Amino acid sequence: MTADFQSWTSQCQAAIEDFLDSRLPGIDCVPYRLHQAMRYAVLGGGKRVRPLLAFAAGELAQADVGRAAVVGAAVELIHAYSLVHDDMPCMDNDVLRRGKPTCHVEFDEATALLTGDSLQTLAFELLSEMKLADDPETQLSMIKQLAKASGSRGMAGGQAFDLDNVGKTLTLPELEFMHIHKTGALIRAAVMLGAHCSNHLNQTQLEKLDHFAKYVGLAFQVVDDLLDAEATTATLGKTAGKDAENNKPTYVSILGIREARELAEKLQHDADRILNEFGDAAMRLRQVTDFIIKRKF
Amino acid sequence: MTADFQSWTSQCQAAIEDFLDSRLPGIDCVPYRLHQAMRYAVLGGGKRVRPLLAFAAGELAQADVGRAAVVGAAVELIHAYSLVHDDMPCMDNDVLRRGKPTCHVEFDEATALLTGDSLQTLAFELLSEMKLADDPETQLSMIKQLAKASGSRGMAGGQAFDLDNVGKTLTLPELEFMHIHKTGALIRAAVMLGAHCSNHLNQTQLEKLDHFAKYVGLAFQVVDDLLDAEATTATLGKTAGKDAENNKPTYVSILGIREARELAEKLQHDADRILNEFGDAAMRLRQVTDFIIKRKF
Repeated sequence: MTADFQSWTSQCQAAIEDFLDSRLPGIDCVPYRLHQAMRYAVLGGGKRVRPLLAFAAGELAQADVGRAAVVGAAVELIHAYSLVHDDMPCMDNDVLRRGKPTCHVEFDEATALLTGDSLQTLAFELLSEMKLADDPETQLSMIKQLAKASGSRGMAGGQAFDLDNVGKTLTLPELEFMHIHKTGALIRAAVMLGAHCSNHLNQTQLEKLDHFAKYVGLAFQVVDDLLDAEATTATLGKTAGKDAENNKPTYVSILGIREARELAEKLQHDADRILNEFGDAAMRLRQVTDFIIKRKF
Repeated sequence: MTADFQSWTSQCQAAIEDFLDSRLPGIDCVPYRLHQAMRYAVLGGGKRVRPLLAFAAGELAQADVGRAAVVGAAVELIHAYSLVHDDMPCMDNDVLRRGKPTCHVEFDEATALLTGDSLQTLAFELLSEMKLADDPETQLSMIKQLAKASGSRGMAGGQAFDLDNVGKTLTLPELEFMHIHKTGALIRAAVMLGAHCSNHLNQTQLEKLDHFAKYVGLAFQVVDDLLDAEATTATLGKTAGKDAENNKPTYVSILGIREARELAEKLQHDADRILNEFGDAAMRLRQVTDFIIKRKF
C-alpha cells in the first residue's frame, strides 16, 4: 500500500506541477520579472499537501480527476501567495523557503508583493474559467468557499491574529483558534472543493467530510510545530527553530513535545474514525492523513 | 441635467458606502486590527468612479440596481487593495491618500499587507455569494473577467511594468500599454460587469461597450496625469507632483500639458461616439464619462 501511495502521490504532484506550469504566464510574457517571480514562487517545490487532499477527496466523490487538479492548483496558489507575503520583511522576515531564497530575497520586495497579489488573483481565475462542478451554482459556491477560507475571517485573519499576539502567552483554545484560521481553513477548503467537483456525496456525507477536514487541519499544524522544534533547517527547507526564537506560541511551547505528539495522534485517530464510515472509498484520504502526520519535513 | 447627475452620483456613492459598510467585517470581529484597517482603507472616501461606471452600465443593460451595487463594490475593493499595496514603502512609499495617512502609516506595514490581501479576497467573495446575473454561467464569466483584469496580465501587471520602467524613457505606445493594464483593465471590468448583470444587451452591443470602456480607461489616466501635474496636494487628497519628482513617465511628461489635455478630449469624443449609438439609454454613462474628464481631483 505504501509503494502504491508513493506512486499515486508522485502522479498527483506531477499533474499539479504540469497544470500550474501551463497556467502560469510564461517568462517571455510582459511583465517579465513578475512572471518569473510567480513561477519561482510556485513551481518546483512543496509537498503539495493541499492538492493531494483535493485529489483524495475528489476520488471519494468519484469526481473527474481533471477538475480535482484545477481546484487543487487553485488552493495551492492561495497557499503559495500566503508564503510569499508571510516571508516578507514586514511579516516574518524569512530568507529561506523550500530550500531556496525567499521571493523578496531572490527578486525584490515590490516584486514579491505583486507576486503574492497576482497568485491570489490567478487562483480565482482558475476557479472561474472552466467547468469544475456538475452545475454552475455549485461552482459559484466553491469560489465563495475558497474566498471565505482565504480572507480576513480565514487564513489572512489567522495570520493577523498571530501578528497581534507575538510575544503574548496564548491559551490552548486561543492557539487553536489561530490555527483553525491560519492553516486549517485552507486545508478544509482543499478537501471540500475536491469533494464538490461532483454531486456524488450527499449533504450528510459532506458535513462528515468537513468534520474530518477540521481534524486534519489541526493535526497538520501540530505536526508543523513539532517539526519546527525538532528538525534541522536542512531537512525542513525553511529556517528551523524560528518559532521559539521569535517567542511564538506553538503546540510545543504550550504542551511540550510529548503531549503535542500525543495530540497529533489523537487527531489522526479522530479523523480516521470519520473516514471509516466511508469505507474503502476513503483510502486515499486515509493515506494522505497518515502522510501528513508522519511527514519529516 | 447636472443637478440630476449630482444627486444620482450621491445616491450611488451612498449605496456603495452602505453596502461596503455592511459587508466589511465589524471592528468588534477578531482580528480587530485587520478589520479596522480594512474599513479604514475602504470606507468614507474616494470618488467611487468604478462603481459609478458599473451603475451606469447596469442602467444601460436595464439590470437590477442591487446587482450593479455588488459588482461595483467588488471592483472598488480591488481598487482599494491596489492603493493600499501601491502606497507601501517597497512600492510608491506614499504617506497620504484621500486626505488621510495611508494604511501602513496609520497602522503598520504588516497590517497593510494583510489588508490589501483580504480586500482582494473579499471582492471575489462578493461576486460569488449572491445571484448577480440572469444565469450562473454568466456570473462565473464575470468572476473570470474581474480576475483577468486584476492579475498579472491586468492591473497588477501594469503596476509591475511601471516599476520595471521607473527612470526609463517610455514611448507613447509603451505608456499606453502600461495604462491599459494599470488603470484601464479595472475600469473596463467595472463597465462590463455592470452590463453583465442582465442579459439585456446582445454580443454586438457588449463589444461596443467594451470599446467605449477602453477609451474611458485611457481618458481617466490622461486626466490623472494632468491633475498630478497641475493640482495641489490639498485638492488632490494625495501627494501631488509625485510623478515628476519620481521621474515617472506620464502623458504630461511625454506630450506636454496642452497636448495631453487635447488627447483627453479626443478620447471623450471617441467614447461619446460609441455611446450615441445606444441613444438615451446611455445617458448615465455619458454623464460619468464627462465627470471623469472634467473632474478636479
